[in-house]
Amino acid sequence: MIHQLTLSDVCRENARRYPTTDAVVDGELRYPWPEFDSRVDRVANLLAAQGVKRGDRILWLAQSSHRFLELMIAAARLGAMICPANWRQSAYEMAFVIEDFDPAVIVWQHEEIGATVIKAREIADSHALWIQHDSKEADGYDALVDATSAEPVVVGEVSADDALLVIYTAAIVDRPGGSLLTHRNLLTMAATNSRVTGSDHTSVFLNSGPLFHIGNFQFEALPVFLMGGTNVFVRRVEAANVLQILADERVTSAFLMPPTIMAIRELNKSAGLDISRLRGGAHAPVWGDALPTDPTLWSQQPGGFGQTEVTGMPILRAFGEPGIGNAGRPSPFTQVKIVDADCHEVADGEVGEIVIRGDTVHLGYWNRPDTNAARFLEGGWWRTTDAGRREKDGTISFLGTLTRMVKSAAENIYPPEVENCLTGHPAVRAAAIIGVPDPAFAQSVKAIVVREPGTSVSEGELRDYCRERIASYKKPKFVEFVDEIPTVDGRTDYDALDATFGGGGYPGRVDISTPVG
Amino acid sequence: MIHQLTLSDVCRENARRYPTTDAVVDGELRYPWPEFDSRVDRVANLLAAQGVKRGDRILWLAQSSHRFLELMIAAARLGAMICPANWRQSAYEMAFVIEDFDPAVIVWQHEEIGATVIKAREIADSHALWIQHDSKEADGYDALVDATSAEPVVVGEVSADDALLVIYTAAIVDRPGGSLLTHRNLLTMAATNSRVTGSDHTSVFLNSGPLFHIGNFQFEALPVFLMGGTNVFVRRVEAANVLQILADERVTSAFLMPPTIMAIRELNKSAGLDISRLRGGAHAPVWGDALPTDPTLWSQQPGGFGQTEVTGMPILRAFGEPGIGNAGRPSPFTQVKIVDADCHEVADGEVGEIVIRGDTVHLGYWNRPDTNAARFLEGGWWRTTDAGRREKDGTISFLGTLTRMVKSAAENIYPPEVENCLTGHPAVRAAAIIGVPDPAFAQSVKAIVVREPGTSVSEGELRDYCRERIASYKKPKFVEFVDEIPTVDGRTDYDALDATFGGGGYPGRVDISTPVG
Repeated sequence: MIHQLTLSDVCRENARRYPTTDAVVDGELRYPWPEFDSRVDRVANLLAAQGVKRGDRILWLAQSSHRFLELMIAAARLGAMICPANWRQSAYEMAFVIEDFDPAVIVWQHEEIGATVIKAREIADSHALWIQHDSKEADGYDALVDATSAEPVVVGEVSADDALLVIYTAAIVDRPGGSLLTHRNLLTMAATNSRVTGSDHTSVFLNSGPLFHIGNFQFEALPVFLMGGTNVFVRRVEAANVLQILADERVTSAFLMPPTIMAIRELNKSAGLDISRLRGGAHAPVWGDALPTDPTLWSQQPGGFGQTEVTGMPILRAFGEPGIGNAGRPSPFTQVKIVDADCHEVADGEVGEIVIRGDTVHLGYWNRPDTNAARFLEGGWWRTTDAGRREKDGTISFLGTLTRMVKSAAENIYPPEVENCLTGHPAVRAAAIIGVPDPAFAQSVKAIVVREPGTSVSEGELRDYCRERIASYKKPKFVEFVDEIPTVDGRTDYDALDATFGGGGYPGRVDISTPVG
Repeated sequence: MIHQLTLSDVCRENARRYPTTDAVVDGELRYPWPEFDSRVDRVANLLAAQGVKRGDRILWLAQSSHRFLELMIAAARLGAMICPANWRQSAYEMAFVIEDFDPAVIVWQHEEIGATVIKAREIADSHALWIQHDSKEADGYDALVDATSAEPVVVGEVSADDALLVIYTAAIVDRPGGSLLTHRNLLTMAATNSRVTGSDHTSVFLNSGPLFHIGNFQFEALPVFLMGGTNVFVRRVEAANVLQILADERVTSAFLMPPTIMAIRELNKSAGLDISRLRGGAHAPVWGDALPTDPTLWSQQPGGFGQTEVTGMPILRAFGEPGIGNAGRPSPFTQVKIVDADCHEVADGEVGEIVIRGDTVHLGYWNRPDTNAARFLEGGWWRTTDAGRREKDGTISFLGTLTRMVKSAAENIYPPEVENCLTGHPAVRAAAIIGVPDPAFAQSVKAIVVREPGTSVSEGELRDYCRERIASYKKPKFVEFVDEIPTVDGRTDYDALDATFGGGGYPGRVDISTPVG
């Protein structure tokens, strides 16, 4: 008889318990919770009139907008799913998502990305109803919503275990896959995270991160939604505009990357706007003295480990004392094991694949039964395909993606272990490890090394240095010296290194697409 | 494929993530989380060897002990249930619970309550295995546990929606009933409450409240358990002993009533022990300057509304700004409606029955299908049988139990409304309202009044006073003047007033035992 709450129920109750607080703000527009909830009813009625029902799908082909949140909660009300697609994708990539996700309704945007969307629409085979969200015409989103009844939607059963939010990740074997996040996944994450970030009914979060990344939902659109605070939307990030919003809306947190933060700091030296309510969070060091000290756990002990498929970061440094492992400890609704290639648990201190179970593990990927069967172990353990270690103090070390694990004879070699060893050498500025195919041993270890200026350490010297410090089979068989290691999004671009230096044959790439036992 | 965590899973993970923290302390005994988890395996193996399996029941007929917590988590591991019975009951009351709950195993205590338990065992018809927990003999609990394997228990499916903790309440119609609280009920409450009380892995909670009340679990044995902190046990409350434990164990919170707090304050004036880690919580005013200021929400905005059947207090003043309603706001995993006698929602500001749904609503009462059918409405709404009102600021006012609502003609009269009116009169020190049967109008309102010393207000004057301030039908038809209003547990003893002054015929007492539509 227990009814487990959905995001729709939370919205309904917020309309009652926080009647005067704004639920969303977007430019001049501002909806207090009761008005937002009523608008969600209109949107749900509009979708229902188009035949959208439990299990159906809605695709958001647009940038950030309050309309996304109301569509998401309307989908929640109907038991439907919504996917915020990556608007930076090419038309062909968008077309793939349209065909793969097979939505009943596509809500799209003309401004800035219209040409790409229109091309995707031409390419894709889809029977979806298309609604333009930034149109002022009679067939545009707002006009359709305004013309629809705000009577509370009455639907059949919607379960907290239904999928609601679908985010495509690039991590799965040969093509992107839509990770199916349930109401319970999202609410459990939100409840845990609201504690870490200290969000409550007075919080004002600026949705300045991409909606197609889980990060913006965890830090912290959904914790603020759950606690009855305010979500502010901005179509896309532009420093001067963001600065103005931070001041005007008395924003308490925002999803911002360091380059934007630095630009805002610089702008505010002359603008002198009051943004003192903002908490720096994990980026407090980048904000420096431009913000007051942030006392929250997320600022004092920032960081963790996660992926979309486990609803963001369920392992966080915020839990317990700072310890050995760089990822911190599993949060309360998370259980972690480290397993070997046969999926048996390894001893503490040994490296293996991080597997996770609990209330934030997703349902699997949309329409990928084989991959799902391969990635879920008995008992609901999800294979992250990432390498890690349980340290003796209970913390978890994240060591890199398992798909880049090097296999030499029977031994598993994790690039970060060798990289850490190499960068300990005074003449090494940076290092990256790849595996190169070896006819006798499956793979050999190759190190790509940037020397400190003015030094001249040799391949042989580095090999000897490693042999003294780590197991001999882990030492680089080959060393290539380069001026710079290529990066993508600030991280080593291993794919580029493989292409340049002959890497390949990683066993992890096969393992995760093969069903287990 | 999602595996939703149980209390057993949380314990397993705590043994990994907090390997050096004490899980339980009881006198000289002290088990860090790994040792506690291993002992839980022994207990679970012992129970399993006795045939205990999913859905079976264990009865705790004893006072407070660490052994209760390990039995509870062992029950969680097997999918079984455990009930901590009220050890203050008579032998006949205990015998009723034994027969009603039908446990496979009864763990009992000889010290202090042995004679009553032995008599109950003689009276009750039960095939349970009896194990004495405070025996040092070979057939005593500790010896049996020590002789059992600590191999991790492997069991079939245990669901987070299985009942785990069963607490008998006196609130249901004709006899006590066991409220079935699930893993999810308890974990949702614990997660929400850990935020309100600020508990974390450094928290040390003294279980000085009765285990047969939900209060001790919410404030805050289970939040501390969830977050990986320490639960300290003391067999029963004695001020000098409690004071010593508060100091020795650096306790951060304890379940204590004002008389005990005042006794501890007095004792510590001469003892001078350092108890400065203790937070006063809701009783900070009673502690006064004996403790540092408690900055937690539970101390700053204490109080709320709840009952065992909704896992304690899911409506708390801690959420949002302080407002009109004395109970505060529904917590994030709770939805509230106020309904009339036909179970239709009433408008804000109107009085009706508080109904609640969400992740903390229990499964129902053990073995009471008719009552459960009557108390659950469609959509999972649980009838609390308590009267309340949704205020315009979103807060909830709790107005008293609906079973004491007075019905006069077609009108519902809630005693607290009339009592509040009467005590506003300068000559009234205290007042209580009962309903007396009336052949024409179902019931009439009778006021029992204590005058301020030296005053002589009359029945007619009080009637007139009320008529000016509340709806005329609510005014007392009869007034009885007394020297003192009888109390039980510090609250008005309405049953005694009914017996003395002819009260009866309350419609609420019938409503809640009748299935609805």
